[in-house]
Amino acid sequence: MELPKAYSGKRFVLFSHPGDFTPVCTTEFIAFQQRYEKFKSLNCELIGLSVDQVFSHIKWIEWIMEKFGVEIKFPIIADTGAMSEKLGLIHPGKGTNTVRAVFIVDDKGKIRIILYYPQELSRNVDEILRVVEAIQISDRYNVAMPANWPNNDLLKDRVIIPPAKDVATANSRLLKAKAGEFECYDWWFCHKKLP
Amino acid sequence: MELPKAYSGKRFVLFSHPGDFTPVCTTEFIAFQQRYEKFKSLNCELIGLSVDQVFSHIKWIEWIMEKFGVEIKFPIIADTGAMSEKLGLIHPGKGTNTVRAVFIVDDKGKIRIILYYPQELSRNVDEILRVVEAIQISDRYNVAMPANWPNNDLLKDRVIIPPAKDVATANSRLLKAKAGEFECYDWWFCHKKLP
Amino acid sequence: MELPKAYSGKRFVLFSHPGDFTPVCTTEFIAFQQRYEKFKSLNCELIGLSVDQVFSHIKWIEWIMEKFGVEIKFPIIADTGAMSEKLGLIHPGKGTNTVRAVFIVDDKGKIRIILYYPQELSRNVDEILRVVEAIQISDRYNVAMPANWPNNDLLKDRVIIPPAKDVATANSRLLKAKAGEFECYDWWFCHKKLP
Amino acid sequence: MELPKAYSGKRFVLFSHPGDFTPVCTTEFIAFQQRYEKFKSLNCELIGLSVDQVFSHIKWIEWIMEKFGVEIKFPIIADTGAMSEKLGLIHPGKGTNTVRAVFIVDDKGKIRIILYYPQELSRNVDEILRVVEAIQISDRYNVAMPANWPNNDLLKDRVIIPPAKDVATANSRLLKAKAGEFECYDWWFCHKKLP
Amino acid sequence: MELPKAYSGKRFVLFSHPGDFTPVCTTEFIAFQQRYEKFKSLNCELIGLSVDQVFSHIKWIEWIMEKFGVEIKFPIIADTGAMSEKLGLIHPGKGTNTVRAVFIVDDKGKIRIILYYPQELSRNVDEILRVVEAIQISDRYNVAMPANWPNNDLLKDRVIIPPAKDVATANSRLLKAKAGEFECYDWWFCHKKLP
Amino acid sequence: MELPKAYSGKRFVLFSHPGDFTPVCTTEFIAFQQRYEKFKSLNCELIGLSVDQVFSHIKWIEWIMEKFGVEIKFPIIADTGAMSEKLGLIHPGKGTNTVRAVFIVDDKGKIRIILYYPQELSRNVDEILRVVEAIQISDRYNVAMPANWPNNDLLKDRVIIPPAKDVATANSRLLKAKAGEFECYDWWFCHKKLP
Amino acid sequence: MELPKAYSGKRFVLFSHPGDFTPVCTTEFIAFQQRYEKFKSLNCELIGLSVDQVFSHIKWIEWIMEKFGVEIKFPIIADTGAMSEKLGLIHPGKGTNTVRAVFIVDDKGKIRIILYYPQELSRNVDEILRVVEAIQISDRYNVAMPANWPNNDLLKDRVIIPPAKDVATANSRLLKAKAGEFECYDWWFCHKKLP
Amino acid sequence: MELPKAYSGKRFVLFSHPGDFTPVCTTEFIAFQQRYEKFKSLNCELIGLSVDQVFSHIKWIEWIMEKFGVEIKFPIIADTGAMSEKLGLIHPGKGTNTVRAVFIVDDKGKIRIILYYPQELSRNVDEILRVVEAIQISDRYNVAMPANWPNNDLLKDRVIIPPAKDVATANSRLLKAKAGEFECYDWWFCHKKLP
Amino acid sequence: MELPKAYSGKRFVLFSHPGDFTPVCTTEFIAFQQRYEKFKSLNCELIGLSVDQVFSHIKWIEWIMEKFGVEIKFPIIADTGAMSEKLGLIHPGKGTNTVRAVFIVDDKGKIRIILYYPQELSRNVDEILRVVEAIQISDRYNVAMPANWPNNDLLKDRVIIPPAKDVATANSRLLKAKAGEFECYDWWFCHKKLP
Amino acid sequence: MELPKAYSGKRFVLFSHPGDFTPVCTTEFIAFQQRYEKFKSLNCELIGLSVDQVFSHIKWIEWIMEKFGVEIKFPIIADTGAMSEKLGLIHPGKGTNTVRAVFIVDDKGKIRIILYYPQELSRNVDEILRVVEAIQISDRYNVAMPANWPNNDLLKDRVIIPPAKDVATANSRLLKAKAGEFECYDWWFCHKKLP
Repeated sequence: MELPKAYSGKRFVLFSHPGDFTPVCTTEFIAFQQRYEKFKSLNCELIGLSVDQVFSHIKWIEWIMEKFGVEIKFPIIADTGAMSEKLGLIHPGKGTNTVRAVFIVDDKGKIRIILYYPQELSRNVDEILRVVEAIQISDRYNVAMPANWPNNDLLKDRVIIPPAKDVATANSRLLKAKAGEFECYDWWFCHKKLP
Repeated sequence: MELPKAYSGKRFVLFSHPGDFTPVCTTEFIAFQQRYEKFKSLNCELIGLSVDQVFSHIKWIEWIMEKFGVEIKFPIIADTGAMSEKLGLIHPGKGTNTVRAVFIVDDKGKIRIILYYPQELSRNVDEILRVVEAIQISDRYNVAMPANWPNNDLLKDRVIIPPAKDVATANSRLLKAKAGEFECYDWWFCHKKLP
Repeated sequence: MELPKAYSGKRFVLFSHPGDFTPVCTTEFIAFQQRYEKFKSLNCELIGLSVDQVFSHIKWIEWIMEKFGVEIKFPIIADTGAMSEKLGLIHPGKGTNTVRAVFIVDDKGKIRIILYYPQELSRNVDEILRVVEAIQISDRYNVAMPANWPNNDLLKDRVIIPPAKDVATANSRLLKAKAGEFECYDWWFCHKKLP
Repeated sequence: MELPKAYSGKRFVLFSHPGDFTPVCTTEFIAFQQRYEKFKSLNCELIGLSVDQVFSHIKWIEWIMEKFGVEIKFPIIADTGAMSEKLGLIHPGKGTNTVRAVFIVDDKGKIRIILYYPQELSRNVDEILRVVEAIQISDRYNVAMPANWPNNDLLKDRVIIPPAKDVATANSRLLKAKAGEFECYDWWFCHKKLP
Repeated sequence: MELPKAYSGKRFVLFSHPGDFTPVCTTEFIAFQQRYEKFKSLNCELIGLSVDQVFSHIKWIEWIMEKFGVEIKFPIIADTGAMSEKLGLIHPGKGTNTVRAVFIVDDKGKIRIILYYPQELSRNVDEILRVVEAIQISDRYNVAMPANWPNNDLLKDRVIIPPAKDVATANSRLLKAKAGEFECYDWWFCHKKLP
Repeated sequence: MELPKAYSGKRFVLFSHPGDFTPVCTTEFIAFQQRYEKFKSLNCELIGLSVDQVFSHIKWIEWIMEKFGVEIKFPIIADTGAMSEKLGLIHPGKGTNTVRAVFIVDDKGKIRIILYYPQELSRNVDEILRVVEAIQISDRYNVAMPANWPNNDLLKDRVIIPPAKDVATANSRLLKAKAGEFECYDWWFCHKKLP
Repeated sequence: MELPKAYSGKRFVLFSHPGDFTPVCTTEFIAFQQRYEKFKSLNCELIGLSVDQVFSHIKWIEWIMEKFGVEIKFPIIADTGAMSEKLGLIHPGKGTNTVRAVFIVDDKGKIRIILYYPQELSRNVDEILRVVEAIQISDRYNVAMPANWPNNDLLKDRVIIPPAKDVATANSRLLKAKAGEFECYDWWFCHKKLP
Repeated sequence: MELPKAYSGKRFVLFSHPGDFTPVCTTEFIAFQQRYEKFKSLNCELIGLSVDQVFSHIKWIEWIMEKFGVEIKFPIIADTGAMSEKLGLIHPGKGTNTVRAVFIVDDKGKIRIILYYPQELSRNVDEILRVVEAIQISDRYNVAMPANWPNNDLLKDRVIIPPAKDVATANSRLLKAKAGEFECYDWWFCHKKLP
Repeated sequence: MELPKAYSGKRFVLFSHPGDFTPVCTTEFIAFQQRYEKFKSLNCELIGLSVDQVFSHIKWIEWIMEKFGVEIKFPIIADTGAMSEKLGLIHPGKGTNTVRAVFIVDDKGKIRIILYYPQELSRNVDEILRVVEAIQISDRYNVAMPANWPNNDLLKDRVIIPPAKDVATANSRLLKAKAGEFECYDWWFCHKKLP
Repeated sequence: MELPKAYSGKRFVLFSHPGDFTPVCTTEFIAFQQRYEKFKSLNCELIGLSVDQVFSHIKWIEWIMEKFGVEIKFPIIADTGAMSEKLGLIHPGKGTNTVRAVFIVDDKGKIRIILYYPQELSRNVDEILRVVEAIQISDRYNVAMPANWPNNDLLKDRVIIPPAKDVATANSRLLKAKAGEFECYDWWFCHKKLP
């Protein structure tokens, strides 16, 4: 999938919205803008996208500034439809409007997470922040995250060692667990506290 | 997309997991089981799916029961790969493992939300509960939900009236707002309290 | 070419414009609106079209009303690109913007005149009015119009008899000319005053 | 589209006509000839085209000279049908006759304007002169022309600055307007007097 | 080969000419017209054809009448090229001009003779008259014509009995020759005087 | 069309005949032989062709010599059908017999004239001599021949100047006519006496 | 393979020859004619075939009659090449001449024997007579013929019982041999005297 | 046709037989073996072929040796069917058995004679010897053989000069005949005694 | 796969062998014949198959009878190669010989076991007897057979209950085991004594 | 067929099983493990294969170790289905389960034996040991094995000399047999004691 070149080598969140001058999108843009500093502190850029034209985008941004005093500082792509079609943003039976899609892309240009929400349901920007952070920790420490991390019922904010894939590794896991390097429920289910 | 017939006419969440006897999946199964009653109170079924064989599924479920005292009560599909391929669960460059996908399907059999998470990052079962509930409210009251609902910075748990699509409707919106039926920032951005 | 069904059996002018909130288009919309009564007196409807979305259209129309006190009363199509592609309105090398095209369609649904103007050059709404009127006269009296009609250098507002296509008709033309029914420069070039 | 090489690097108007010895065409040829000096003063050549043969063309030109004392000085292409087919001049359901098409081509060989008129309705040579002139002014001063220019109801013969395509330019437009460089209704709608 | 229906059941000569207002064609048209009565006395119609348009045809016929006092009374087809292509009248490397072709068609609609002459060489209308007559005699008396008939060096205007195709017929021919019914050089070469 | 290489660079007449030991063909062979010297004085060779075998050809030639004392001196091709098929000599509905075709080829290898006669009607060898001579005169003096030349009703044995193809040439023709270089009925119809 | 219908239900020998007026063929035709009565006494017709034309065939037959006093009484097909191609009579690298082929066809229309001889080697008409007779005896008595029959070195003019194809028949053969019905070298090789 | 390489450059007779342990084949093998020396004195090899397997071939040869004291000394190909299919030895409607085919191949690898005999009729090995010898004489002396040679009714063992293919050769033949070099019935039918 | 119709509804063993008169095949045929009664007591027929011809088959069977006094009583197919190709009996790189294949087919015409052995290694007819018997027991009692049955190291001649495929069945298995119906190592591994 | 590279140059037995945690497979794995040393003493590796995932494999192996004290020491491939499909292990009408296939591969990477057993019938590991050994002896001494070797009814553990394929070898076989090198029933059936 061909993504904007300026963002190659950068982590970013690309999110499409159905249209300018629509209310759910307006609340999302404001929510993204209000967490823009947190995303940037995680080295993650934000990019909006819709099939509206650039003149319409600018008028809408003006309106948001006037009404709510919020200045949208991340860029918005005025798509001719070509990129929307390639990313699967125009779903059959939905007319012209793009769906609410989110693509979370890492600094290798690899799409790690894809979310498709319906037009009538806004996204949860805090969940997007959670996974952006989780991916970075997973990448840095080579660990996996349990369900609902960092609020897992069982492990709290502990993280998981990737499971053994042969008998030798399985046995060494159990030995390391005995040595206190981490804890294991079985050779394939070991977990530890992050440093 | 062809989905199990037994579930036609039911709301359900179909989630695939990479493999039996793997740790992140185990935390997810426990998390889903622990919220199973909440999903059922929203009239929503749960269905797990992986490419493991049925004998392996049963052994793993036994293990979870033994170790954590949690009995997995929702069904798990032992897929031969045919369904996984159709739902796009085996991503290129990922080998045999299915990805962590979630399909949220309404009682019309329409897929409303699709999520793809990577192998190393568990899903947020609470976010899945949030959107299952939001879709039902949206369907029942014909409203849309703002960002992060019910915790929107601006509107809190208020919901949004779908925007006018012609000038006549735009004008009537502003009149109704004046009459106190709801509040509007503009003819296209009106919101109200749920009953 | 598939045109809106509501207009079947009606004469109309379909004109595309590059985008909402652009200045040349704004002058054209005002010019069309100011001559709308004249077009309607010729039983001819007006239809605008661009690839902007409906919310953007309405905001722009609001702006025109506010700034110039002109209310745009003819409809504008918010095209997803499908119709633009079919009518040849997106020219290669022009990006997303639709070109300034005009299709003049008669009450048989037949396109009589097609004009393509570049983005930087507004159309001449008076010339469009001239040809709409000329087509109706041509259809009613089975005559043809000379260059620049009704201001032809040679014939002024006189109109032309369609030329003879065989020798017998050619001869009868000359006889009728002698009888004063019309005037002829030759058997193939006869003209007369409209009643 | 392959156009005559002799004209490469020249501005020209290529107009097809249905046939020699037909009356509307005769009035058009005379009208073009009478404005030929004006076209040439705008550095614009004229080229006629029909599917008649060269001997017929010459006889017809002789006839025009004899009857009206007008000498046609621009060249006429005797087309075998190949060029007519490529330029779309033979419309389905019209038999052999070419339609009345006009192609206005600039000195880069780029077709700027295309007009298709029906057989029964002559073109307006004055409108063609208007757009030839307007294109040259637009190219020289990098401006756009409002509707009906130079007789726009609102701006008279003033011309338009191309609209801003990002927020920075939009803001600088408003500043330049304040500085009196031009006048603006909004950041996207600025106009000025030609020098 | 599809020929004009009006001529079905009639003998006719269809001849194409390169173009109106060309000199060789003019001499041919005059020559055909001057022998038109002879062709008609043989129950044979004449049809001209070129790719010129009908208005040009009529002007040329006028010119011939004016200059030579000869009125062309047979019809001329104004071909759009479709029939010319089907009859092979536009030869590669010849440009637009049709070649000088002659098709001699009998009352069964069967083409009996085809002649293709080059542009620079007029046809021999007397030779065409000769073969039109010879075909009719051949058809009526079931005989064949020797070389240069009726001026054969050997047989003068005598005609030939079709040769025997088996030994029995061969023998009977020789017997009939002995009986004086006709003369034979051999069983396959018998000839006689027409009644 | 592939023709015998030995004849490349030579003018020749290639004529097919239906079969050896047939009477019309015999009269034609004798007629060609009796005019062979005239053809050769025009630098033109003769070639016969049929699908008979070489032994049959020789026997037939013997017979002609014996019966009429005429020695056939030009070659005859014994065709296997391959060349006959390529030259269109076997017409559908005619069985095995080749038709009477004549191809007149100039010294550039270009076919100038094609004649197809039916089986029952012999060719006119004198007409073939006429056109062979006419082509050579046309080629040498760059002139065209009127109908029935050299027995044209109007021009007798005068020949035609190729018509002007632009106005400048047309005018110069009329000037030369005035200067007595040739005579003209119009700018496109000039004729002269051969030297 | 499609053979002449007149011969359906008849035994016949179809033999092609390279050409009329060739010497080997002449000796073959004479040899066939001199054994024609023997073939007919075996109820077997003869048919010659070459690609010569019918007139040539008849002249050649005349020549044979004149020179050798032999009247060829069987028919000869004048083939256009279509049948020759179907029967494989024109071999690649052999030019036009048909090869010397023999097809021996029984009264069921089944080709029993096919022989292809080269042009330079005449056929053995006595061998053809031998096999025509052998086929009839084989068909009548359901026996097979040994090598060189009726001159086999071992069995002389005795004939062979078709071999057993299963053990039961094999055993019964040996029993019948013991009973003197025929003689056997083994269960699969039994022979007897014809009645 | 691909033939065994060991035989390239050798004259040979390749003959297929329907099957081992069949009686007609046994008589043929014995007949070929008894004439093997004669074939070898003509420098001609013998090759048998059937679709039986090699072990079966050897057992059958043993049987022949035992029963008749005849040792088969020429090779037999055990074909898998591939060669049989290529040589056309398995005829439709004949089941598995190969037909009795003979291919006589010269030392250029060219197949000169092809014979197909039915299963129930043995070949004539003497006729095969006759043609093998005749081909060699024809090749050495460039002559052709008359019917039934060397027992032709007319010419006895005299051989034929290939017929003249043009008039010059035809005449020289007659001259040589007069000079006593050979005898001729006509220019195309000359014969002589072999040296 | 199309199998001989006579065997439809019968259990049979179809075994191909490389060729008649080969030693390994001979030992196999004797071994099959010596166990033929046992196969028949299991209602199972035997069918041999090779690409040898029927005469060769019979001679070989004679040889076996003579040498070893063993009469082969089951049928042998003389295959033309068509069936061998369909059953995959001719392996690439093996030449003509069929491989040693065994197809064990039940009375539903379903192939239950396929064995391919190399040419140099004879089959184990006792193993074939073992599986023919095991399949029948499995079918009759709906049980499965452990490794090396009836000589399994662990279970001896006990047989296995097919494993549970859902949790409910799994549980009922354990209950039945407790009730003494069979023995289980786990819910999926139960076994019992055959009656 | 593409097999694991690590095993190139090694003899091995590749056997697929329907699924982990199934009873017949468990008995087979134990039987293979208990004969693993014997296979290794024949330089032959073992490889298991099923479409289960690696975590399931390890859990099953653990279970076998716990229940029976048998440690599975040979590797098991966790196949994604790609290899199963290539080796034909998933038979139509069998669902997901792989069939019980055995591939015995020699040290040239050539598959020597293929066995397909049904799901309900375990393999005979002793028969697999027998053929692994037999192939090695066959390869080392260039001999073939009789039926049921080393328990052949006729030859006991003697082995067979490959049969002669031409008469010369056949004769030398009989000579060697007389010399006592081996014993023969016929030239094609010789056998000897292994050293």
